[in-house]
Amino acid sequence: MKARVTVTLKNGVLDPQGKAIEGALGGLGFDGVASVRQGKVFDVEMRHTEAAAAQAELAEICEKLLANTVIEDYAIELM
Amino acid sequence: MKARVTVTLKNGVLDPQGKAIEGALGGLGFDGVASVRQGKVFDVEMRHTEAAAAQAELAEICEKLLANTVIEDYAIELM
Repeated sequence: MKARVTVTLKNGVLDPQGKAIEGALGGLGFDGVASVRQGKVFDVEMRHTEAAAAQAELAEICEKLLANTVIEDYAIELM
Repeated sequence: MKARVTVTLKNGVLDPQGKAIEGALGGLGFDGVASVRQGKVFDVEMRHTEAAAAQAELAEICEKLLANTVIEDYAIELM
């Protein structure tokens, strides 16, 4: 079973990478962009065949390793 | 208009970050994970109100800045 985990910064948390991209886009002449925030995505192949078991293990993995829940949110999408 | 751009490594391209996460998960006792591949996600706020214009500018931005199209694929999702 495949899953995609998306980890993004919470609102209000400063995102220097996103700001750097905004600056670079301005320099390249892309005027249509108002703001950019960068996050991470993990494509995970699970051995579980049951969605509930996969979801539960992924949530624990996010809490313990993939996301810093003080400043980041995570979303799990089973495919 | 908001958009989400997801940049992932093409199949066959080595992903040391993903391998490191797999190793760490094994060490933490998460046996349900077969493989992990890491990518990047960009949440972009566009000034465009037309979807076609936003999509076109984002595709150009991906080609020029956000993705290395030799080794990475990108997907644009308007929201």
